[in-house]
Amino acid sequence: MGFGRRKMDVSPQEVKDYLCYQTGALRELARVAGAELQHLKPHGILYNMMEADEALAAAAGEAAMESKLILMTLASGKYDATCRKMGARVASEGFADRAYNVDGTLVSRKIAGSLITDPAKAAAQAAKMAVEGKVRTLDGVEIDISVQTICCHGDTPGSEKIVRAVREALEKAGCQVKPIRDWLPRQ
Amino acid sequence: MGFGRRKMDVSPQEVKDYLCYQTGALRELARVAGAELQHLKPHGILYNMMEADEALAAAAGEAAMESKLILMTLASGKYDATCRKMGARVASEGFADRAYNVDGTLVSRKIAGSLITDPAKAAAQAAKMAVEGKVRTLDGVEIDISVQTICCHGDTPGSEKIVRAVREALEKAGCQVKPIRDWLPRQ
Amino acid sequence: MGFGRRKMDVSPQEVKDYLCYQTGALRELARVAGAELQHLKPHGILYNMMEADEALAAAAGEAAMESKLILMTLASGKYDATCRKMGARVASEGFADRAYNVDGTLVSRKIAGSLITDPAKAAAQAAKMAVEGKVRTLDGVEIDISVQTICCHGDTPGSEKIVRAVREALEKAGCQVKPIRDWLPRQ
Amino acid sequence: MGFGRRKMDVSPQEVKDYLCYQTGALRELARVAGAELQHLKPHGILYNMMEADEALAAAAGEAAMESKLILMTLASGKYDATCRKMGARVASEGFADRAYNVDGTLVSRKIAGSLITDPAKAAAQAAKMAVEGKVRTLDGVEIDISVQTICCHGDTPGSEKIVRAVREALEKAGCQVKPIRDWLPRQ
Repeated sequence: MGFGRRKMDVSPQEVKDYLCYQTGALRELARVAGAELQHLKPHGILYNMMEADEALAAAAGEAAMESKLILMTLASGKYDATCRKMGARVASEGFADRAYNVDGTLVSRKIAGSLITDPAKAAAQAAKMAVEGKVRTLDGVEIDISVQTICCHGDTPGSEKIVRAVREALEKAGCQVKPIRDWLPRQ
Repeated sequence: MGFGRRKMDVSPQEVKDYLCYQTGALRELARVAGAELQHLKPHGILYNMMEADEALAAAAGEAAMESKLILMTLASGKYDATCRKMGARVASEGFADRAYNVDGTLVSRKIAGSLITDPAKAAAQAAKMAVEGKVRTLDGVEIDISVQTICCHGDTPGSEKIVRAVREALEKAGCQVKPIRDWLPRQ
Repeated sequence: MGFGRRKMDVSPQEVKDYLCYQTGALRELARVAGAELQHLKPHGILYNMMEADEALAAAAGEAAMESKLILMTLASGKYDATCRKMGARVASEGFADRAYNVDGTLVSRKIAGSLITDPAKAAAQAAKMAVEGKVRTLDGVEIDISVQTICCHGDTPGSEKIVRAVREALEKAGCQVKPIRDWLPRQ
Repeated sequence: MGFGRRKMDVSPQEVKDYLCYQTGALRELARVAGAELQHLKPHGILYNMMEADEALAAAAGEAAMESKLILMTLASGKYDATCRKMGARVASEGFADRAYNVDGTLVSRKIAGSLITDPAKAAAQAAKMAVEGKVRTLDGVEIDISVQTICCHGDTPGSEKIVRAVREALEKAGCQVKPIRDWLPRQ
């Protein structure tokens, strides 16, 4: 019935249970395939719900801590802050292909300019976030942002070119692109 | 659509994937609750399908081995033999409350006398299987059976009394009732 | 995922489609069993959602009109008014076993006295609504209410006695209890 | 869990219920869209199951009769014969784009030549079935076949060209292509 894309009433305990159920199933299939689950990223509308509701954010933090998984969050958001305070191992996400508002949230997809499809621009935004800890908003203001991982949406037009340009820009700027588990400090 | 009670066409790879998906989800919820998953017991019609199809039986064996879980099987059956040959850590089940055929299979529930509801009789059958490695069939023949775990169905009438009687009979016969993981040898 | 008891984001078109899908399936099974579907009653949380959102209420009205079904509504509520204005064939429900607020809504189940479990009281409330078009609220105020059908919840303790008492009281008061389709005017 | 493509144990009553449920839901949505449901065509593995099991075939016949829908069947098959005997309003299907075996069944998709992708050949086969009541099998034998409707699979490569060629060939041969309900006799 559209979980992931449709807002539903869920209690914090339900969110925690759903996250454990899904990561548990995925972890076992990954293990059988010789891989190890690294992180947990609540997706779509759930991301928004956690930004708006501290109890849901904390439920994600608990799920990640108890499952010993790294938790992806929106860099500099409330959900990020809540989970860091709890002691979860958090990787704050910066978005290469999305424009930012002055308060650090993403510009709604309904607004012109919200999506950055020029590979050079996306790459420059990613490198600036990673190296300087800054991002220029849609309105031209420079704000602080602290990121440990960069998201490029697979469904952005030209995503293959964007992701290659982002990687090159990061490496040119002296960043090493490595699996998060290899370097992200444990709290 | 009735999986578990309804026969469906499934490939060995699908069975393996379903088992990993379900045990993975359950294991994670168990871990969060402070418990550790010990064993995997394919249930209902799946048990029958594995007895009849060696490739499905082997799929269960692989799932158990890769997930490092003890696998429950029908004592002395084909599915049991297949998984032992593969090197899976198998716990063969004997049934306290079900009558046996001469070939070691369970008497169909449609036949009178298939269900043993007298706690004393169920307890005697369990102790005989555990201590002597024998069971008397519905026809009165004594056959060999090698069991490591005893099943008492929760939905057999008077199951509470049966399970208590079985435990007492086992202990009186000198058996120690312990979690399988604490004593079952690894292959 | 809890539709019926869990609030979810749904568009008016989705509500209409869900209602048509479900009544269509039910109508066909009823037809095969020799019965004819008479009415449509959105249940649980959907009732509340329609009271709060006129576009959802209108979607239910459209579904009922296009499916030529009588539509159950909360007597004197907004959803009732919306669907009547549209020309739907509406049967306004009065509740025998629930206490009312002064604005004609039901007292929340969380509040003491919200549930009327005394068959005599429930019967009196039903008869008063049917004959006088009035109901006395939990606060003791008498308000107007116009009802064509009386709801007795099947899960109210003693529901069997309540429904019998309600029927007797209605008949004693001179009301005939008949299938709605036999007498409710078409708009 | 794959109903439609996966063989499952289903009782005749279950098949009938599933057919009524699905046609009921579809009929209501069609009605709301201003259309009227004309026929019922059990698809995929269900078609095969009905060919192999007379009780399942009869269940489809009952569902169609009680729902007053035309029933699609495999021309000259057992399922077709069963439903005609029952008095269902049957439209026997011939396949333009599939090769036939001598017993009137379709050549398995696993065998070379089973699929007819040349529009001219598919069109000729359709016209021959419709006009002469004959089809030449993959082995070159001419067999009798009685068809009221022609199936062209939407997923056969070049299906657009095939369907156009089939229509033209039928019309050139003097057949009128019309909705089945407009001319198929009622039994």
